[in-house]
Amino acid sequence: MIRVGIAGYGNIGRGVEVNIRENPDMELVAIFTRRDPETVKTKGLCPVLPIAEAENWKDKIDILFVAGGSATDLPEQTPKFAKLFNVIDTFDTHANIPEHFANVDKAAKEGGHIAIISCGWDPGMFSLARLYANAILPHGEDYTFWGKGVSQGHSDAIRRVEGVADAKQYTIPVDDAIRRVRAGEAPELSTREKHTRECFVVLKEGADPKQVEHDIVTMPNYFADYDTTVHFISQEELDRDHSGIPHGGFVFRTGSTGADQENKHVIEYSLKLDSNPEFTTSVLMAFARAAVRMHEAGEVGCKTVFDIAPKYLLPMDEDYMRAHLL
Amino acid sequence: MIRVGIAGYGNIGRGVEVNIRENPDMELVAIFTRRDPETVKTKGLCPVLPIAEAENWKDKIDILFVAGGSATDLPEQTPKFAKLFNVIDTFDTHANIPEHFANVDKAAKEGGHIAIISCGWDPGMFSLARLYANAILPHGEDYTFWGKGVSQGHSDAIRRVEGVADAKQYTIPVDDAIRRVRAGEAPELSTREKHTRECFVVLKEGADPKQVEHDIVTMPNYFADYDTTVHFISQEELDRDHSGIPHGGFVFRTGSTGADQENKHVIEYSLKLDSNPEFTTSVLMAFARAAVRMHEAGEVGCKTVFDIAPKYLLPMDEDYMRAHLL
Repeated sequence: MIRVGIAGYGNIGRGVEVNIRENPDMELVAIFTRRDPETVKTKGLCPVLPIAEAENWKDKIDILFVAGGSATDLPEQTPKFAKLFNVIDTFDTHANIPEHFANVDKAAKEGGHIAIISCGWDPGMFSLARLYANAILPHGEDYTFWGKGVSQGHSDAIRRVEGVADAKQYTIPVDDAIRRVRAGEAPELSTREKHTRECFVVLKEGADPKQVEHDIVTMPNYFADYDTTVHFISQEELDRDHSGIPHGGFVFRTGSTGADQENKHVIEYSLKLDSNPEFTTSVLMAFARAAVRMHEAGEVGCKTVFDIAPKYLLPMDEDYMRAHLL
Repeated sequence: MIRVGIAGYGNIGRGVEVNIRENPDMELVAIFTRRDPETVKTKGLCPVLPIAEAENWKDKIDILFVAGGSATDLPEQTPKFAKLFNVIDTFDTHANIPEHFANVDKAAKEGGHIAIISCGWDPGMFSLARLYANAILPHGEDYTFWGKGVSQGHSDAIRRVEGVADAKQYTIPVDDAIRRVRAGEAPELSTREKHTRECFVVLKEGADPKQVEHDIVTMPNYFADYDTTVHFISQEELDRDHSGIPHGGFVFRTGSTGADQENKHVIEYSLKLDSNPEFTTSVLMAFARAAVRMHEAGEVGCKTVFDIAPKYLLPMDEDYMRAHLL
């Protein structure tokens, strides 16, 4: 049995709790929290402990899910825990991946552990789709579309607008752009041509809808470069119709081969997810298994999805995989 | 530079010749043939040699593409060459993969080489799509659809029918079946509900079209279980409109997570290929690079796509991949 721990009880922690029974080779043994454990309501599968106690569990956990935010939590926590445990995180601040990798690699090697960073679906499965497709078609173009799905960052940005009580933002890929890419047209697409943004907003009492809409659609970085639609609805409607966290997207590589590049090829990988956090956790659990197996095979250091032979992800033996999946 | 050799000059050999320039870290150094080399017309990138001379090239080739048929060529050739070289093949007789793996593994270990078997897109990339998706969604269903594309085996079968001068067969996935799978319906689909078969047939002089059509559509294993359409056309039309070798297909896994399995997820990987042999060769070249790199890293033995860390497929260094593809 792979003994799983979680540091930080949020979406990922809850995802592990629901997904663990689909992975009969894994058991959840401890949840660590920075909050008062008494105040953390879990499903009760395992004890909830103060994070300071984690080091006492050094020999009782095979893989720790480090489930914090990329901005400030993971840069500090993942290296710290990599000295004590095999770890996995979802670090997704692209520009800082090289630095995070270096810090985690040093700590994991000191501790003699495997640490997988930047796992999930993007970065993660979408990264793998890009890598495989680039290796196969050196002559070609990459496209990534996200959605239809809820962007937490954009929803948060709307909530910070004066006059907004609550909000949910959907990122939506433009159908016509996807159609052109899929047809092998290799179009050049602006930001505006790739995605639209749809916002469902609950106003505070007395707020001016015209002003709120203007403040949203002109917001730099978040909305100014997109065609953005704002719908004003009640809190009841928001809670009733927009409480899910769906997401997904498409990774394409289109390219050509032949003496005159006359043969076109389209590689497409896509996800359609009812629950972004539960799917992300599902990816993490497969790679958590891989971390433990690579550690058993004598490997140490920081790894990404690029470093992991696919065979490590499944609990079945290699004969089974070759007979049934190849 | 990775020095590439080819044993057997057919579709794969020609594919390597056209694709090699897209892979600037590779050079084609020798083509070995069972035919009289004088009769083999290549693009002239490298010498064409009798297959018996291969062993003299032991230290001059980093990876040999073993490009024969799965029925009789590869079971004999791949183990033989794995004693001399790192090798890669496209062995696709599913039921015999365990036996082929064992034979090649023994030979590759004796020779101290890496041997990759069953590479291409199915088996190959489709196998990877299945493995990753199964690891992520343990609770779910797999679907593979092929086409629209030319099936060489089915085209050959039609050509053996009495009264047929020439023929081309297309395998076509049923749109409605794909739509239902993509919508997460998890349907149970019969063979007939998944694919249709479309045949373009040139009759021999005096042949009875009614009889030929009957003999095709009732052919066991090949056509009897499908809705098959037969079109009679002239040799000129066949040559003009059906000389390409397109193919492709779709690998789906649909599954669910959540306390009551209430959240549905759809993972889809698809290929749309103008040239099946050129794309297959493109996949082989990426994995050929991986074979050489794994060999440099000290590994030996038989491998499949499941055993190969994705980072080995690209010529860039790992820092570059993490910064640009993750």
